[in-house]
Amino acid sequence: MSLMNGNIIDGKAVAEQIRKEIAAQVVAMKEKYKRVPGLAVVIVGERGDSQTYVRMKQKACEEVGIASFGSSLPASASQEEVLATVRRFNNNPDVHGILVQLPLPPHVDEAAVLGAISLNKDVDGFHPFNIGRLAMKGREPLFAPCTPLGCIALLDRCGIDIKGKRAVVVGRSNIVGMPVAMLLNKRDATVTICHASTKDMEAVVRDADIVVAACGRSKMVKGSWLKPGAAVIDVGTNPTPDATKKSGFKLVGDVDFDEAKSVAGAITPVPGGVGPMTITMLLQNTVESGRRFFEGIALEDAKPV
Amino acid sequence: MSLMNGNIIDGKAVAEQIRKEIAAQVVAMKEKYKRVPGLAVVIVGERGDSQTYVRMKQKACEEVGIASFGSSLPASASQEEVLATVRRFNNNPDVHGILVQLPLPPHVDEAAVLGAISLNKDVDGFHPFNIGRLAMKGREPLFAPCTPLGCIALLDRCGIDIKGKRAVVVGRSNIVGMPVAMLLNKRDATVTICHASTKDMEAVVRDADIVVAACGRSKMVKGSWLKPGAAVIDVGTNPTPDATKKSGFKLVGDVDFDEAKSVAGAITPVPGGVGPMTITMLLQNTVESGRRFFEGIALEDAKPV
Ligand SMILES: NC(=O)C1=CN([C@@H]2O[C@H](COP(=O)(O)OP(=O)(O)OC[C@H]3O[C@@H](n4cnc5c(N)ncnc54)[C@H](OP(=O)(O)O)[C@@H]3O)[C@@H](O)[C@H]2O)C=CC1
Ligand SMILES: NC(=O)C1=CN([C@@H]2O[C@H](COP(=O)(O)OP(=O)(O)OC[C@H]3O[C@@H](n4cnc5c(N)ncnc54)[C@H](OP(=O)(O)O)[C@@H]3O)[C@@H](O)[C@H]2O)C=CC1
Repeated sequence: MSLMNGNIIDGKAVAEQIRKEIAAQVVAMKEKYKRVPGLAVVIVGERGDSQTYVRMKQKACEEVGIASFGSSLPASASQEEVLATVRRFNNNPDVHGILVQLPLPPHVDEAAVLGAISLNKDVDGFHPFNIGRLAMKGREPLFAPCTPLGCIALLDRCGIDIKGKRAVVVGRSNIVGMPVAMLLNKRDATVTICHASTKDMEAVVRDADIVVAACGRSKMVKGSWLKPGAAVIDVGTNPTPDATKKSGFKLVGDVDFDEAKSVAGAITPVPGGVGPMTITMLLQNTVESGRRFFEGIALEDAKPV
Repeated sequence: MSLMNGNIIDGKAVAEQIRKEIAAQVVAMKEKYKRVPGLAVVIVGERGDSQTYVRMKQKACEEVGIASFGSSLPASASQEEVLATVRRFNNNPDVHGILVQLPLPPHVDEAAVLGAISLNKDVDGFHPFNIGRLAMKGREPLFAPCTPLGCIALLDRCGIDIKGKRAVVVGRSNIVGMPVAMLLNKRDATVTICHASTKDMEAVVRDADIVVAACGRSKMVKGSWLKPGAAVIDVGTNPTPDATKKSGFKLVGDVDFDEAKSVAGAITPVPGGVGPMTITMLLQNTVESGRRFFEGIALEDAKPV
């Protein structure tokens, strides 16, 4: 299976390759431990997009043999009810990963809920303890966030070197920009982190061998900004009106793809680039977590802070 | 009191100014709460340099009115003994900051000991939870590491803007490079993190409005690398043989000061730049911690992970 079409990275193909490997690992674990990894997804409220994501995650679990658990609370659920749900999954030995679908309703404290997930089961890697270890030399997080892991996996699977390269990350959110910067740093890239206060972004981006765009701004990164040959990972998924689509909109990246594809050495399309990788990395983290539990090497005292 | 001599930042003068403010805060706290903040320093073994640092810290505490507690264990102390000492200070209500002098003897697990310090008393800010929050948008650490805080305080006190500026940090250690990069990012600089695998460091440094050198390599950063007018914070303290000194050595920075001072807009000397700031920020963190305890706003459940 080819993972690139010319210089265009086929995220679907990469994701498929990794999911096949994961499915084989689950078969082997079932053989060896008579158990399979389990993922629990907590959703609060009736947002259509959130429900779609949750369904996609559960379907992906089934396809690779991971047991999937769900808890759907009404938008009116109290913070204590959400916390109780998380704690129930913390104590369930068949659950090895817990994911709370964001955003939560405004009356529920996101930091408190994410902080209540057992560190051993924080397969989203959002706990400050995991982010801290990600930023630290000589320490490893129990789990790294999935979309950032997906960006790195795309580079690795397509044979793009990271060590010693200049990398520019546009965006510094807790779920994408900052952790992807930390992962690139751990892999010995020289990383620059850009954000809304960055001046002359064009000049900054032009120095980069690797660009990760995660700013949520349609087509902001222009082809003319890129160093010829640069690898471009476009995380952006900006819904844009499109009358030709049944849904009435299409997804557009943070990079001007049409311009960039003639300059970049490798580039991800939107959709079909980073998108399929996020859930794939969630499956990978869950399988790794299950393995730690089955082998008895999960942190003994991993109470959340 | 002038904080700069020409373009040379007087770290001693800045530190003195801040210590006077801290002393006044301690007086006010004593008035209001009938208590003063307390700092405990744990030292294991007989290393001369460590003992000198510990004495300096205790003397600095006395000068600003902070109560100082010490525990000196022999180099042969077991890990359990070190942990027990830390726990005793965790439970002592007169102690609001705990500092373990590094390095520890090789048979003692540094991560385990640092991780045992109550988050409420981690005035060194080295706990992964604090580093994680430092890296996260919308979250604040309970404490940030002292040397990095000192670098930022020097910039602030000398009126050097950070927001929107390009900053290059040379070094990414857990105690200096990475946290200073995270602090500069929180202050909205566009930050690049360099390390031993960085290629063409000269070109990277030349883009910087603010350079923080923390690589432990004598005079590595040359004057010719700098953008004219850049602010240069030199964290390096490299002991270098010097027959004219009583001790037989002098301290040399990571920047070639003689070359750099004619190019930089502002520059710290070594010694007398960042050096005096580290202990000053430790005092500041301890006073802040004491205030949180006296006002009852210390984290309720701040058990370490
Ligand atoms: N493919 C996938 O699986 C996923 C895709 N996404 C997509 O990735 C994109 C980013 O998501 P997320 O990180 O959550 O977004 P956030 O809105 O949380 O963060 C956006 C970041 O971009 C920065 N930014 C905003 N405007 C600019 C600008 N003009 N120039 C430079 N930087 C800017 C912000 O800077 P500042 O901090 O200064 O405000 C912020 O750090 C979105 O399009 C999102 O839909 C997200 C998650 C998963
Ligand atoms: N003034 C003060 O109060 C303090 C001063 N210091 C001083 O600051 C300096 C740094 O200390 P510390 O952070 O603990 O040191 P470390 O040795 O822990 O870290 C050094 C960092 O510099 C990087 N580095 C090493 N060589 C090079 C090179 N040739 N080019 C680019 N980067 C390089 C390393 O990269 P990599 O990660 O790739 O190995 C590493 O990240 C030392 O001189 C120390 O004495 C430290 C603490 C307090």
